Amino acid sequence: MHDHRDTGLSLDPKYDSNGLITAVVSDRTTGEILMLAHMNAEALAATISTGQAHFWSRSRDRLWKKGESSGNVLTVTEIRIDCDQDAIWIIADAAGPACHTGQRSCFFRRIDGDALSPVE
Amino acid sequence: MHDHRDTGLSLDPKYDSNGLITAVVSDRTTGEILMLAHMNAEALAATISTGQAHFWSRSRDRLWKKGESSGNVLTVTEIRIDCDQDAIWIIADAAGPACHTGQRSCFFRRIDGDALSPVE
Repeated sequence: MHDHRDTGLSLDPKYDSNGLITAVVSDRTTGEILMLAHMNAEALAATISTGQAHFWSRSRDRLWKKGESSGNVLTVTEIRIDCDQDAIWIIADAAGPACHTGQRSCFFRRIDGDALSPVE
Repeated sequence: MHDHRDTGLSLDPKYDSNGLITAVVSDRTTGEILMLAHMNAEALAATISTGQAHFWSRSRDRLWKKGESSGNVLTVTEIRIDCDQDAIWIIADAAGPACHTGQRSCFFRRIDGDALSPVE
């Protein structure tokens, strides 16, 4: 019941109806998940060709090089894709905080019941 | 320019137009990203209350307890949420392979240019 996309060795991203695929970035040294965003084909190609993470900004509706204004670029070590090729995992070195709030990771709060707690 | 959702300590998930939020699961001991799926409010509540990962199956259009048929459940250690509360990070112990292909992680291939290579 596995199709070619699931087990083959051809890159064939399954973009959604908006032409996007989910991309999650982890820190190469700590393993911490830094951020989650979306890529279109152009952003994925730019990420592969430049070695720096690019995404598609849904709010600004344009290609977005992470760190283009802050300088906090993500230098890519490895790019993986999941079984059904609708998600990307980027392993990267971060030049600075990945989050727009200034936190190292966007995932700086844990869920405790109905509330959130800061993670050290 | 930060709103309450970004920096506050109230759980207020930003579900998309289909009532879903993206959830990524990493292995507690190895840090490896195991899978990426989606949750609705019911799946998130079930994950919090049971301590085992639940998702919303978009293909079967129903609540899906990970491992309900395979036994490969994901026992949750910690749940984090990102700055704009539209993504969940679950840190879990996996009872077995997370991927339907039998691989430990769904992200078992890396992108090399236009092709994929198996990750050891």
